[in-house]
Amino acid sequence: METRVEMKAQHISSKEFDELFEKVRNWGKWGPDDERGTLNYISPNHVKAAADLVRSGRSVSLAIPINTVAGPDNPHPATHYMVKAYDIQSERGEPQFVSDYLACEFHGDCHTHIDALCHIAYKGKLYNGKSTTNVTSRGPKIMDITAYAHGIIGRGVLLDIPRLRDVKWLEPGEAVTREELEAAEKAENIRLGEGDIFVFRTGHHRRRLEVGPWNNGYDGEGKAGLDPRAILMLHDRRVAAFLPDGDGETVPSGVEGVAYPIHALQIGAMGMACSDSLQFEELIKVCEEEQRWEFMVVAAPLRMPGGTGSLFNPIAVF
Amino acid sequence: METRVEMKAQHISSKEFDELFEKVRNWGKWGPDDERGTLNYISPNHVKAAADLVRSGRSVSLAIPINTVAGPDNPHPATHYMVKAYDIQSERGEPQFVSDYLACEFHGDCHTHIDALCHIAYKGKLYNGKSTTNVTSRGPKIMDITAYAHGIIGRGVLLDIPRLRDVKWLEPGEAVTREELEAAEKAENIRLGEGDIFVFRTGHHRRRLEVGPWNNGYDGEGKAGLDPRAILMLHDRRVAAFLPDGDGETVPSGVEGVAYPIHALQIGAMGMACSDSLQFEELIKVCEEEQRWEFMVVAAPLRMPGGTGSLFNPIAVF
Amino acid sequence: METRVEMKAQHISSKEFDELFEKVRNWGKWGPDDERGTLNYISPNHVKAAADLVRSGRSVSLAIPINTVAGPDNPHPATHYMVKAYDIQSERGEPQFVSDYLACEFHGDCHTHIDALCHIAYKGKLYNGKSTTNVTSRGPKIMDITAYAHGIIGRGVLLDIPRLRDVKWLEPGEAVTREELEAAEKAENIRLGEGDIFVFRTGHHRRRLEVGPWNNGYDGEGKAGLDPRAILMLHDRRVAAFLPDGDGETVPSGVEGVAYPIHALQIGAMGMACSDSLQFEELIKVCEEEQRWEFMVVAAPLRMPGGTGSLFNPIAVF
Amino acid sequence: METRVEMKAQHISSKEFDELFEKVRNWGKWGPDDERGTLNYISPNHVKAAADLVRSGRSVSLAIPINTVAGPDNPHPATHYMVKAYDIQSERGEPQFVSDYLACEFHGDCHTHIDALCHIAYKGKLYNGKSTTNVTSRGPKIMDITAYAHGIIGRGVLLDIPRLRDVKWLEPGEAVTREELEAAEKAENIRLGEGDIFVFRTGHHRRRLEVGPWNNGYDGEGKAGLDPRAILMLHDRRVAAFLPDGDGETVPSGVEGVAYPIHALQIGAMGMACSDSLQFEELIKVCEEEQRWEFMVVAAPLRMPGGTGSLFNPIAVF
Repeated sequence: METRVEMKAQHISSKEFDELFEKVRNWGKWGPDDERGTLNYISPNHVKAAADLVRSGRSVSLAIPINTVAGPDNPHPATHYMVKAYDIQSERGEPQFVSDYLACEFHGDCHTHIDALCHIAYKGKLYNGKSTTNVTSRGPKIMDITAYAHGIIGRGVLLDIPRLRDVKWLEPGEAVTREELEAAEKAENIRLGEGDIFVFRTGHHRRRLEVGPWNNGYDGEGKAGLDPRAILMLHDRRVAAFLPDGDGETVPSGVEGVAYPIHALQIGAMGMACSDSLQFEELIKVCEEEQRWEFMVVAAPLRMPGGTGSLFNPIAVF
Repeated sequence: METRVEMKAQHISSKEFDELFEKVRNWGKWGPDDERGTLNYISPNHVKAAADLVRSGRSVSLAIPINTVAGPDNPHPATHYMVKAYDIQSERGEPQFVSDYLACEFHGDCHTHIDALCHIAYKGKLYNGKSTTNVTSRGPKIMDITAYAHGIIGRGVLLDIPRLRDVKWLEPGEAVTREELEAAEKAENIRLGEGDIFVFRTGHHRRRLEVGPWNNGYDGEGKAGLDPRAILMLHDRRVAAFLPDGDGETVPSGVEGVAYPIHALQIGAMGMACSDSLQFEELIKVCEEEQRWEFMVVAAPLRMPGGTGSLFNPIAVF
Repeated sequence: METRVEMKAQHISSKEFDELFEKVRNWGKWGPDDERGTLNYISPNHVKAAADLVRSGRSVSLAIPINTVAGPDNPHPATHYMVKAYDIQSERGEPQFVSDYLACEFHGDCHTHIDALCHIAYKGKLYNGKSTTNVTSRGPKIMDITAYAHGIIGRGVLLDIPRLRDVKWLEPGEAVTREELEAAEKAENIRLGEGDIFVFRTGHHRRRLEVGPWNNGYDGEGKAGLDPRAILMLHDRRVAAFLPDGDGETVPSGVEGVAYPIHALQIGAMGMACSDSLQFEELIKVCEEEQRWEFMVVAAPLRMPGGTGSLFNPIAVF
Repeated sequence: METRVEMKAQHISSKEFDELFEKVRNWGKWGPDDERGTLNYISPNHVKAAADLVRSGRSVSLAIPINTVAGPDNPHPATHYMVKAYDIQSERGEPQFVSDYLACEFHGDCHTHIDALCHIAYKGKLYNGKSTTNVTSRGPKIMDITAYAHGIIGRGVLLDIPRLRDVKWLEPGEAVTREELEAAEKAENIRLGEGDIFVFRTGHHRRRLEVGPWNNGYDGEGKAGLDPRAILMLHDRRVAAFLPDGDGETVPSGVEGVAYPIHALQIGAMGMACSDSLQFEELIKVCEEEQRWEFMVVAAPLRMPGGTGSLFNPIAVF
């Protein structure tokens, strides 16, 4: 009980947060017009090393099936319609075709998606210190999702916190510290390193499957995520990308004046390739069977000019 | 000039086509409820062998940027809207967010997408002999796109026909025969084999970039594709998947009563994982630089229950 | 308390319902290909008489503002996006423009809309005995919403049941009988007659405004509506159209095997122009002030070929 | 031939245009927060008088059927999908339902719609001198389409210019002067007056029906409309609303630096209720038969909070 209470996000003052922001800030590191951010950490050798992890040939989706049902965490259900079915014959003879239509406002806490670097601004600045005036109602002029058009490929490292804690999932509001991430590394005999893709499991989706959807925002129950200071570890280790269930944020965040500090730090300061709302329920079974928590990851956003992100289906290959 | 004329699709009678259909029919081959079709040819060893092709760590998108501009080959332009921009402050303080909305009826000849096996019926039957009544206006009950949820991963083999012919692109209506595919293999010193992903280039997208969009349907100029008899080669070689620019079809097809014979054969008879409207303009540069026409392919459709296909962004890794 | 219980829908057997269906069935009455149904009751004189009711020149919308917020009665929230705002200058100089995009799956219990006659089938038959095979996944071939393209214009007669009962609204599950409709006529000193547009108020929307949205379906709390036998009165009186808050249905209906009997009778049997989910909170104020419950109604669905209905904004003019 | 040339828009200097803007400017006339603009000219008596025009009871739609086909004047085709058809049985027994989905970016030159006053800004100001900062990417805070929620009702007066000129339609680029409007009044024995709804016919839609769609923008063939100085007549006469085929604009406009002067004057300066892309092909038949060019108009935009306009179906009643 009391342990649970201690796991809540600790208070961080506005000043302390801004110091943290400065520490992990990569602005200018890869040039003034860089749009790849921490993906620059992934060298050809890292890609090759990731491919070398493919041994059993198994692959696993890290995406939640697209959700068309409105709910407390899905205010913008995807809309999916058949264009036509086989109840009528094609006008052009054989073969016959059916088709469909999909529409989605994907940001939020329900649809598996990746963020573009333009998705986040902190105090009026995008990653690399660029002005928010670059992102108008006509769409972003810089740092849209096409910066990731050729895919995000590297070694995925799953740190499975519920496994470490021997619970099914973390409860809303719980924050994972750097110490706990390092404990998970030890438990899995693995180490997050340069150019790695950090797969972070809180059990968010497992909880949704078993308990049902909940409002995970500030006017609801909240959600489990990282302690903002744990971002220092990702910075020190030169982690390239972030694949969480949930979205990495602890709600409430504990940070004075900053509702979503993880996004501010990862995307705004570091330029990290970040995604939201994945699920690892299939992945953890394979990890246990293979007894390894590293694998090749290939993730490819849709190639949408002006996209502030994209639905996607990241794949782990073992 | 005359050569060009000879390259047009040859006439195939309805009877001959049905014999072809029978020859390549895989119905029942992998059980009565199989939904993976020719992906069954990809063994764990094939995946591992594909990953072994990753040497330089380069990756290339095979997708066309999503197109929101209506045109003769884009009657259903994607709709893309910003949900909000940075012109207003977030209600919740820092950080600020922008987001967007994407909607698409993706089948057709403009949006890079993959077909689900339910997308095609020939003479009232889906792949594996299933009835079209399984696909209603509420969506497919079987063989939707989630059959490919865990990704399509294997060795991609590009047969670049314009390179073989030393032209920029094939002209609409031209059909590529088995003999020409074999000649391309020879020219590239490669051989399509079991479990391979056949990347087929006619230069369709290059033509679009240089000449502009055209109506490639039966009421327009048509398009270049495969000779239906070339499908026998894909069947004999146990090819697993098909990634073309254009969609593999020659229009007009030359087949009596069958407007789109390639889809009928590949999807309806063989159960092949097929996609449409890719582009290889970036790919061919890398192939030339690396002097190899084989690479790892990872392709992951969105995980849409009931989808008859999906927008996607297949990635080639070298 | 006990009165409330009595107000619940009484049981109607399947046989009795089918007899009711036969009694009010207008099939063939206006020819085999009629698509206007009970709108045929509105003669030019009725339109003129309706216009003669315009005396004070006041007009009132009967529509609920379009709702983009998902909730228990709004599983398909409308999607509304700005296309662009004034944060950027137009490319073409002055003036500058902003625009927006609206998308809606409007049937259901939240969006003010009108049904086309093709929207309902009972035992495999549409109004006028037409086969449901006329309505495929490509849309209806007959009886789409364009049958009402030139507007529905006539005398609106509001029967305000909460006013009669001296309550704010009817509770979910309560059914209004013919006797009660006639009592409302008496209380308002008015009589529904041939060619009239029946405006039926249960207070559904008032309840939503004050209590909040609720699930009004069979798996929820239900809703207040008409007793199916009250439809006989509408038939006898030759009523032309129906504008309810809620949708006229009592849930649960009390009818054996028929979840939504009012739609079956009104649309399927009678061919009545019916709408759903209006609001009369502004209307009743004007009615009280003017001390009359009759007014001109003009209602114009969007002119959508193939529409099974339409969002609309019906107007009462006093 | 030469006559045609003379009919082209005459040159108006930037200075002259701004003087025109000043002359017709109604800013402040109805209070600093007015959102109804020239609709204020419609008194209760005008509504009553309009209703008195209803004599034969005929009604006519002024809307073009919603267009889902992309073309040179329809870059944003409406998207319309069936949600389900009758090919499957309802889960809840009888009756069965079909439904559909409609999505539209309606501004432009193809979809019959009305503009909200927030739709237009001239030199950074909306109608009534309000700042464009009131209209952000989250939508307008003021002057959205709900200002017209209770309908636009009044006397419609059709001035049919092709009838006056004895041509089928005006050619693109032709501009109608005040003198010609007055000549049309004389020919129809009618006079536009205070509180009237000006129905302005150039034959734009007839041309589209007979010749096919064309690009009517600055990079295309243009379109026929009003001479900007004719707006003085609408101002002098206290006209309340504007219903044109086309959109009232002559393209090219002839005005230095102002591509669409009619919108700037009508909406930006006058606060006039303006619509675009209507059709009067059915209307003119009724006008000829009734030998009158005046009728009641009822027009009701969808009640969309934040809408910059709305699809609608205005109705003329005779």
